[in-house]
This record gives sequence, C-alpha cells and structure tokens, in this order.
Amino acid sequence: MATQQQPLPPEPGDSYVQSFARGLQVIRSFSASAPRQTLSQVAAASGLTRAGARRILLTLQTLGYVASDGKLFALTPRILDLGFAYLSSMPIWNRAEPVMEGLVQQVQESCSAAVLDATDIVYVMRVPTHKIMRISLGVGSRLPAYCTSMGRLLLADLDEQELRARLEASTLEAFTKHTVTDIDALLAKVAQARRQGWCLVNQELEEGLVSIAAPIVDRAGRTVAALNISGQANRTSAKVMQDSMLPALLAAAREISRLL
Amino acid sequence: MATQQQPLPPEPGDSYVQSFARGLQVIRSFSASAPRQTLSQVAAASGLTRAGARRILLTLQTLGYVASDGKLFALTPRILDLGFAYLSSMPIWNRAEPVMEGLVQQVQESCSAAVLDATDIVYVMRVPTHKIMRISLGVGSRLPAYCTSMGRLLLADLDEQELRARLEASTLEAFTKHTVTDIDALLAKVAQARRQGWCLVNQELEEGLVSIAAPIVDRAGRTVAALNISGQANRTSAKVMQDSMLPALLAAAREISRLL
Repeated sequence: MATQQQPLPPEPGDSYVQSFARGLQVIRSFSASAPRQTLSQVAAASGLTRAGARRILLTLQTLGYVASDGKLFALTPRILDLGFAYLSSMPIWNRAEPVMEGLVQQVQESCSAAVLDATDIVYVMRVPTHKIMRISLGVGSRLPAYCTSMGRLLLADLDEQELRARLEASTLEAFTKHTVTDIDALLAKVAQARRQGWCLVNQELEEGLVSIAAPIVDRAGRTVAALNISGQANRTSAKVMQDSMLPALLAAAREISRLL
Repeated sequence: MATQQQPLPPEPGDSYVQSFARGLQVIRSFSASAPRQTLSQVAAASGLTRAGARRILLTLQTLGYVASDGKLFALTPRILDLGFAYLSSMPIWNRAEPVMEGLVQQVQESCSAAVLDATDIVYVMRVPTHKIMRISLGVGSRLPAYCTSMGRLLLADLDEQELRARLEASTLEAFTKHTVTDIDALLAKVAQARRQGWCLVNQELEEGLVSIAAPIVDRAGRTVAALNISGQANRTSAKVMQDSMLPALLAAAREISRLL
C-alpha cells in the first residue's frame, strides 16, 4: 500500500503495547518442545518475572486461550481463531485451492502458496501430493526468503533499496553446499527471477529438495504471493521440473492471479 | 487436566485483561467480508471508541501484525504465528498426517481431525481427497459440535452434567430437515456414540453430506480428538460408509492414539 498519511507510532512504554506484546510472547513460548509449561518455565521462556507471567497466563486463561490444571499451562485450540481471521480475510486462497489441486494432479508434486513477511516466507496454502517422501510444511510455517524459490520471487517485487535491506537483515546460513549466501550473488539471483518471471532453487535449503515458483500478481502488477512446486531431486531433477512442470505452474499462477 | 490448585482469576477491570481482550477483538474484526478496514470500521466492528481502536491498531502495527497505508488497515501473515504456536505444541498432528494420508488413499474420501472448544469443534488437520466436489474446511475452521460426527463423539467424553450444559449453551439450529435439535434426542445420540465407540451423522449439517467419526484416545482413556471421513451421500451412502469405511477409520484412529 502507498503511504498516504503516516500514523503516529504509539509512545514507548505505552502499557497497551507492552501488555499486548507480552501476551503474544507468552503464546509464542509454547512449542513442540514445550507444549505444557509451568509458570516458571513460561516466565523464563518469555523473559518475564514470575508475577508478570502469572498475570498474563491468567488473562489468557480468562479469555479461553490457555487451559491449566493450576500447575501446568497449555494453549487451547481457540488460538487458531486468530490465524483464521487472517486467512478468511484473504478469500483468494479458498478460490485458489481447486487450481492448486488441479496442478498437483497434473504434475504429481506438492504445491504451496506463500507470502513475504520481513525476511521470511509464510505458507498460506499447501496441497500435498500423496507420496511417501515429502516435506512437512503446514500453513503458518516460515522459511527464510533468500534461499527459497518463492522467497526470491517475492523479494524480486521490492525496490532495490528495500531488497538490499531485507537481505542484509537476513541470517544468511549455508544450509547445503549449494546455498548462495553472498549478498551480491543473491541480488543477481533475485534480478534473474524478476527478469524471467519465475524462479528455480536447486537444493539450497535442503539436500535433495528442488523447488520452482511463479508469481501471483494483482491488477496493479504487484506480486502479492508466490506459488510453487517442490519435489525430490532424485525423482524430479531441476531440468525435468523446469522443462515439464514450469508451463503448468505458470498457467496455474496466471489463473489464480485472474481471481484476485 | 484435574484441578490441583485453582488460580485466582484476574480482577475485573484489570487493564492487562482489557487491553489484551480488545486487541484480540480487533484482530478478529477482520474477515472475508472485511479484509481491509478503516479506523471507523474497526471501531464499529469491535465495539470500541475511535480513540481506543486507533491505539490498538497502532499497537498491532508496531508489533507487525497489522499493515496500513494510513487509511486502510489489514492483517499481516505474522498473525499465523500465533495459531502455529498451538499446532506445533501438539506434535501429534505431524505424526498423524501420514496415517490420515494412508486412510484417504484407501477410502478415497477426505479425512479430518478436530478437537472440542466449548460448543464447537475446531479442525486441527485435514487431508482432502483429490475430487472435484468437496467441503472447504481449513485448519482453524469451526463447526457446531451437536450436529457433527466428530462433535458428538467429543461430547460423549464429557460427564453428564457438563454434556447437558454444553448442549444447553449451543444454538440448536435445524440446518437440514434431518438435523436433531431436541436436547433429549441429542443426549440419546451422544450416548449411542459413547456406547458404540464411533458416530455417523447423515445430512444433519448440510444436505448431501455424510460423515463418520472415531475417537483418538490418550493413555488415560480420554478422548482428546476425533478423526472423521466425510463424503457426499449421492456418491457414498451412509450405509456404504459404515460398512466399507468404518473398519479402516477405526484402525487409523487406534494407530494415531498409539502415537500419543
């Protein structure tokens, strides 16, 4: 969106900002390795005092987002309502799903859609193929943008200054021996994606994982999301993916773009 | 969880509770019909003053959960992190997915898993079949418990007093001519589900929609979630679903229960 009028930022130390930020921090302190936590564990994980953590946990419990036996605390499924507010505010993904299903049927590989958030891509839709070996990435999963096909395509829509800032803000880690981590080399990769209108990433995130992405473009010509196909290199080489699956992927991305 | 020590509830009027509750209300005011809202629209939808809504929107913007051009506000994908904290705190669903995929392959109908939240079921996992006609229910979707197969099975695990309270708190709507809305009749349906260890609901939520559910049971014998198969009555009758798909469904539910 273009900036028309800059809102005044909330004052630092604003109690609204602080209590809300701390509440969200507490929610995010729960994870696969910490599904149920004591008060002390929550306090330690979210950098709060015991008294502060207790107050927020009781608040979340009052609102139905946390359940407790008095000692251990856990999130409730009501938390999903918050993410659901976002997804249902983007009805495009409901209408995109049949197109993505059709693509999966055609190419027999998994198809996903993602949007950019700072230096990450966030999965908003995923249609897995029914094969044994595949990547477990649900809606809401995050991956770094710099080393993923959807990420590079989404970065390609930023202006040069913003693009460089995002790459500089990224933790550029070599996940495999193929991962590009040099900023100038990444700028060249992103420029190539912009020029050709699609992006292939060959085993830069994970050994054996190949992915190709196409842009979902709104009426103003902005890339609002990316669509990809991903597969295993030992089954589908980068060349096969580009030669035999790219046309179908580009067609699906155009069809979803028309729904916007 | 058994109550060991009851935490003191936060005081009414506690500013933490209020600001957090209002923040969540603002998040939930965004929807498919209101994906982008002005300050006045957010205030009206969440029952806040313009000044109150503005403060919360700017807070959410500072935290990266809302984006704005100064006039229109929209949620960002960062919101999905909150629901993701819940899903990743239940690693069972990652391990359940291959089992559900196998079931879908076998019966060629969609398979879902849900948990109970007050009077609703909330979808936590969904493996669609690749057929044209199917129900669009993503993770985080809610349906009333009283008229769904997973809902009745989850209600069957409550004690009699709690069960009656949940049914009395439900808005019992006749979605089709088959929907059971009488509380005593519903108590009988729930008792039947408890007795037989599975539940079939035939076109009570939607004309043409048949669904059968099995319980996912923890080591203490509590039903923590339900697994279902749903299909179209004109393709798969209730009788066919019960005769030919129930054994596979029960086997998959037992397999997932063993992973707990």
